[in-house]
Amino acid sequence: MVTETDAGADLGNNDGFLAEHAAAIREAAWRLAGHVRRTPTLPADEIATGVAVKPEMLQPTGSFKVRGAFNATLSLLGRSPDARGVITVSSGNHGQAVALAARNLGLDCTVVMPEGSNPVKVAAVRALGARVVSEGVTGANREERARELQERTGLAMIHPFDAWDTIHGQGTIGLELLDDLADLGTVVCPVGGGGLISGCAIAVKAARPDVRVIGVEPELAADAAASMRSSRHERLATPPATIADGLRSLSIGDRGFEVIVRRRLVDEVVTVTEAEIELAMLAVWSRLHLVVEPSGAVGVAALMAGRIPPSPAGSRIAVVLSGGNVDPALSARLLAAHAARLATGGSAP
Amino acid sequence: MVTETDAGADLGNNDGFLAEHAAAIREAAWRLAGHVRRTPTLPADEIATGVAVKPEMLQPTGSFKVRGAFNATLSLLGRSPDARGVITVSSGNHGQAVALAARNLGLDCTVVMPEGSNPVKVAAVRALGARVVSEGVTGANREERARELQERTGLAMIHPFDAWDTIHGQGTIGLELLDDLADLGTVVCPVGGGGLISGCAIAVKAARPDVRVIGVEPELAADAAASMRSSRHERLATPPATIADGLRSLSIGDRGFEVIVRRRLVDEVVTVTEAEIELAMLAVWSRLHLVVEPSGAVGVAALMAGRIPPSPAGSRIAVVLSGGNVDPALSARLLAAHAARLATGGSAP
Repeated sequence: MVTETDAGADLGNNDGFLAEHAAAIREAAWRLAGHVRRTPTLPADEIATGVAVKPEMLQPTGSFKVRGAFNATLSLLGRSPDARGVITVSSGNHGQAVALAARNLGLDCTVVMPEGSNPVKVAAVRALGARVVSEGVTGANREERARELQERTGLAMIHPFDAWDTIHGQGTIGLELLDDLADLGTVVCPVGGGGLISGCAIAVKAARPDVRVIGVEPELAADAAASMRSSRHERLATPPATIADGLRSLSIGDRGFEVIVRRRLVDEVVTVTEAEIELAMLAVWSRLHLVVEPSGAVGVAALMAGRIPPSPAGSRIAVVLSGGNVDPALSARLLAAHAARLATGGSAP
Repeated sequence: MVTETDAGADLGNNDGFLAEHAAAIREAAWRLAGHVRRTPTLPADEIATGVAVKPEMLQPTGSFKVRGAFNATLSLLGRSPDARGVITVSSGNHGQAVALAARNLGLDCTVVMPEGSNPVKVAAVRALGARVVSEGVTGANREERARELQERTGLAMIHPFDAWDTIHGQGTIGLELLDDLADLGTVVCPVGGGGLISGCAIAVKAARPDVRVIGVEPELAADAAASMRSSRHERLATPPATIADGLRSLSIGDRGFEVIVRRRLVDEVVTVTEAEIELAMLAVWSRLHLVVEPSGAVGVAALMAGRIPPSPAGSRIAVVLSGGNVDPALSARLLAAHAARLATGGSAP
């Protein structure tokens, strides 16, 4: 683990910050109406009593990423009606989300994806009409390559997590949870680059400071948990080998660091093992009948592993299932192992 | 195919029948509130433009069967507050649904399941506190065995499809579709014993006679399609070997025959092949991120195979996904084959 920055100067209290950003999230909710789905909040007592889930795999392109992508692209068009196009860096869900936003809003789109990216995901981005740039792109140089391209082409960067427009879009999930669950007590979110949990934490804490916000990341990619402990911006030295491919970023963004760590708008970040993630995917599959990807299952994994503190006085725990784009080969492997266990008298997850 | 009965006497027009049974379905909706879920209606343009799905796998126990089971059990308690318990015959979803209803309403429950039933399903019924009777029970004698037990024990029979209380419960799906989709033009439902489609057809046609109701069954179990052609109550000679295990009944019930065939409240029944059902399951998993069982996927299979007539003037097609309790071994097999096709450059379903 490498310490990137220290905690920085005192930020004062959170009131002004929360008021400003919560207003931007409410504005994002209006902006997004008709462009992305208002997903339902589903009871999930099959996982544990008093639990509800937010099934973001039901969004177009199968993940919450459309919220941030559409908010950022629509905001761009509001500021620059003549914008020609957008560019982003993503080997996964964010690339598809930006490609969809660009297509629906009539903009050009370039997605920088490292060589050797999952061909199914490359094909999905291309099918949405985006140009994929991969030649000479690696995990290490991809941000730099995208910046070069951006400067040369004048396309606008839609960052996957370290941009307020993106964060405000993701925060609409928090608003919907507040709206759907009068007895909300705890919100559980995956943490990768930190955009999702930052948006949700702002939306929730601005309205209901008593609601706890808990982040979950793989043990193999525990930079946010480390940052919470040290109060510094910790960064992984090498890309983590977790199956949760949406949570492999080396560190949270600067904006996420401010929201999660410096302002402590997230109460706690807990970690889960790879085996716990796999078990949670099977439980969501067989008990809730939703297809969840590894990154989307970490919240349920933490809950099943007993790592989420009890919600105050019987209040509801809402778990964000962030997406459903799971590799069919991985699903096949997990389900075959599960079927074999059942056939020899083992119990269901 | 064996002809069971002929079409019988003229039933006159449908107005009185529809008014009476639609009122019973509205009453069922009130009765069920707080006992079963009000599932959302989800846009499913990922399957085809203008399509929506009703994801009944999101119900407790993973299928629509809780609607009929709770309506029948609650109605029983309304008529006979001293009822001791219920009994039913089912090797699948209806057994779990009745077991849940009995447990939640404080009644004893016996489920008659043939010897050799799927042990996962037997365990699921037992886990809900029901007694399972299997000794000497076969597919052929199970109804008879259940009747004997019922007479001896005084338990009330909750029939899986051939009872009005059950049909009225299932019909609440039709009410919810009318409520959610102002532009509803076509409803597509699986047909097994005929309870689900009968309830939906009554609810829909009573309010909107212009909405088309289309049934779908496996080509291997095409008794309802044959009955529609002959106007007689056709019955399969032997249990069909379709993977759609919820649609293996030899014929529709007498009540379903009246609704579907004699009163023609269903416009058409179309059939799908086993390969089409498998492809539809993969499409629902990978495009909609919902876990659907073979019986629940027949509507999408018919749509993808081009067997659902275009909905009038751009109106919406709603497809009922009836349940999600799929054998993990089957899921693993389909996903592994799908992954292998993708790895060799094949396209996604």
